Amino acid sequence: MNFLEERIVKDGIVKPGNVLKVDSFLNHQMDIELLDEIGREFKRRFADKKITKVLTIEASGIAIAYPVARELGVPMVFAKKSKSINIEGEMYVAEVESFTHKKTNQVIVAKKFLSPEDHVLIIDDFLANGCALQGLISIAEAAGCTIEGLGIAVEKGFQIGGRVIRNLGYRLESLAIVESMNAETGEIVFRQQ
Amino acid sequence: MNFLEERIVKDGIVKPGNVLKVDSFLNHQMDIELLDEIGREFKRRFADKKITKVLTIEASGIAIAYPVARELGVPMVFAKKSKSINIEGEMYVAEVESFTHKKTNQVIVAKKFLSPEDHVLIIDDFLANGCALQGLISIAEAAGCTIEGLGIAVEKGFQIGGRVIRNLGYRLESLAIVESMNAETGEIVFRQQ
Repeated sequence: MNFLEERIVKDGIVKPGNVLKVDSFLNHQMDIELLDEIGREFKRRFADKKITKVLTIEASGIAIAYPVARELGVPMVFAKKSKSINIEGEMYVAEVESFTHKKTNQVIVAKKFLSPEDHVLIIDDFLANGCALQGLISIAEAAGCTIEGLGIAVEKGFQIGGRVIRNLGYRLESLAIVESMNAETGEIVFRQQ
Repeated sequence: MNFLEERIVKDGIVKPGNVLKVDSFLNHQMDIELLDEIGREFKRRFADKKITKVLTIEASGIAIAYPVARELGVPMVFAKKSKSINIEGEMYVAEVESFTHKKTNQVIVAKKFLSPEDHVLIIDDFLANGCALQGLISIAEAAGCTIEGLGIAVEKGFQIGGRVIRNLGYRLESLAIVESMNAETGEIVFRQQ
C-alpha cells in the first residue's frame, strides 16, 4: 500500500451504499502534509510531461491541485460550478451531471485562462462516474489545450468513470483505486497497480 | 504598497459598479507563488497567536487557507455551501446571504472538526459586506472555539463588512484594503495601514 491507501485504511470510513468518507483528511478537513505529499507524487508520476497549467474543479479539487501546481511551478485554474444560464461568450462551458445532487450543473472556465499553448494536467480528489472529469476534458479540448494527463487522489474502481476516461485514450493516474468496500466490516480492497 | 497591493495595481481590473476583478491571480486562475507569500505574511501577522486550525469557506477561500495552514503546520477546514435544508445534527449551520446571487445559502461544517480546544484563524479571499465571515464566526463560536483572528486577502474598505467585524471585537487583518476605485481610469486607492 502507498501512503494514501494507508491513510484511507486508517482514517477512511465505509458507509452503506458504497460511500467512502475521507472528510477528516481529504475533502472537508484537510491534512496539509498529506496533500503536499500528493503534490510530490503527481510531480513524480508526470515527470516526463511538460505541464504549463493545472486545471481542477471547485471545491475540494482546489486543495489537491494547489500542491501539484506548487510542485510543478505553474499556475492553477479551477472550473466554477454555475447555475446561471446567462453565460457570456467569455467562458468555456460544460454540462456536468451531478448524481449526488441529481441535477445538471454548468461548469465554466474563463477563456482567457486556457489557450492552445497550454499543456494541462487535470486534477481532482475523487473519480466515480467521471462526469466532472469529462467536463474538464471537454473544456480543455474546446480551448485547444494539450491534455498531458489526469491525476486523481481516490478512484472508485467499481464505478465506470476510470474505464471511460482511459478508453478515451487519456493517461489517468489514480493514487488509490478502491476495488470494493464492505460497510459492515469496514474492509477496503485496493486495486494492485 | 505591499506585495499584494502591487499585484492588484498591476493585474487587477476595475469594472463599473465597484467590481474589482482579481481572477487572473487570486480566485479563478491562481498564482501559487503569490499565495505562498500570502501564507507567509499571515503567519508573520499572527505570530503571537497559538493557532490549531485554519477555517475557511469554499471555493476560493481554500486556495488562500491552504498556504496559511501550511505555514502554521495545522489542518485546514472549509465550510461548505449547502442548499439542502435536510441537515443532520452532525453539522454546525449558519445562514449566509449572498448579495451576488441574491439568495440565502446554508454554510455547514461537520461538528467533529471543530472543538472548544481549537484556536482558529479564519481566512477568506474577499471581504465586502462580511456575511460569509459572520457565518464562519458564528460556526466557530457555536463550536466553542477561540477565534484568534481573521485574515483577508482583499477587503473592500468602502463596504460595511470590515467595520462590522472589527466592531465585534475581532482582530481582522486585511492584506489590501481598497478605499476607492475608478472604473474609468482604472485607479485603485488603498487604505494606509
